[in-house]
Amino acid sequence: MTVTVLRMGHRPQRDKRLSTHVLLAARAFGAEGAIYSGAMDPRLEETVAEFVEDWGGGFTVRHTESWRATVKAWRGEVVHLTMYGLPVQQVIQEIRASSKPKLVAVGGPKAPREIYDLATWNVSVTSQPHSEVSALAVFLHMLFEGTELERSFEDARLSIKPRGHGKDVKTLSKD
Amino acid sequence: MTVTVLRMGHRPQRDKRLSTHVLLAARAFGAEGAIYSGAMDPRLEETVAEFVEDWGGGFTVRHTESWRATVKAWRGEVVHLTMYGLPVQQVIQEIRASSKPKLVAVGGPKAPREIYDLATWNVSVTSQPHSEVSALAVFLHMLFEGTELERSFEDARLSIKPRGHGKDVKTLSKD
Repeated sequence: MTVTVLRMGHRPQRDKRLSTHVLLAARAFGAEGAIYSGAMDPRLEETVAEFVEDWGGGFTVRHTESWRATVKAWRGEVVHLTMYGLPVQQVIQEIRASSKPKLVAVGGPKAPREIYDLATWNVSVTSQPHSEVSALAVFLHMLFEGTELERSFEDARLSIKPRGHGKDVKTLSKD
Repeated sequence: MTVTVLRMGHRPQRDKRLSTHVLLAARAFGAEGAIYSGAMDPRLEETVAEFVEDWGGGFTVRHTESWRATVKAWRGEVVHLTMYGLPVQQVIQEIRASSKPKLVAVGGPKAPREIYDLATWNVSVTSQPHSEVSALAVFLHMLFEGTELERSFEDARLSIKPRGHGKDVKTLSKD
């Protein structure tokens, strides 16, 4: 199953770091790519592209003028992460059972009302307020059942050799 | 086992929203409270206190002048989350097996070198760059084995009735 993340309502000034964290978490926890709506932000796209260049894999980011059009045109299923949705632990098996490509939409406290109706599933990762970053990561971790933790990223320039203490980063030259 | 989160190196201007997300994720995923170092930030503390007032539970936040002093004085074990550490899936059972209170330290890319030596465990949630918010949430989710998703928060003013579509928030009056 492939997963693409939809980050709705990005505002370059206010959300730069949070959107970067959302997109990097999407990549680290196994999404293939991401689409964001709201204001177009070349710096956001460049920042993520630099991480991908260094750390490998094929994660891509693109902007959409309309999250609604993206959701309606999606050939697969849409999972909207919201604290108001059904508990992830109750629906994750059903979501995993379908192999259709998933669009995982994350907004924020002001998610547009219409997404609740357009989504195949509205899913909550706890019914408590926290963060789109943590909701997305835990959702993907549960969707992939921890296999995402073992994932390797091809063609990386940098990679880490895990250590009990200190840091060990390998730098590989690319052709 | 009780968990307290240590958020190191907070900068009020730059980190306000990310630190808020770290602290809310700590609360939502089962930590008892949090300590933060860096600049003291009454607004950060007030923001989290307002969430606790609305959504219940006893989560507390306090500032420390010295993360080092806090770590050295900790009566229990210290888990430092860092992309350079040992894979969480390899060490989580060992960490869970000890019932001692845990201090879970999260920093950021510029975590002070000394924390690597002072920590009982340096733990990575993937060896990829993402976010202290996602690392913390997935770590706590694995530590508590998903039981944190069922947690209820006492004395809440607001609570959510999970729904497949739309929003259903209950407002309870407190005495």
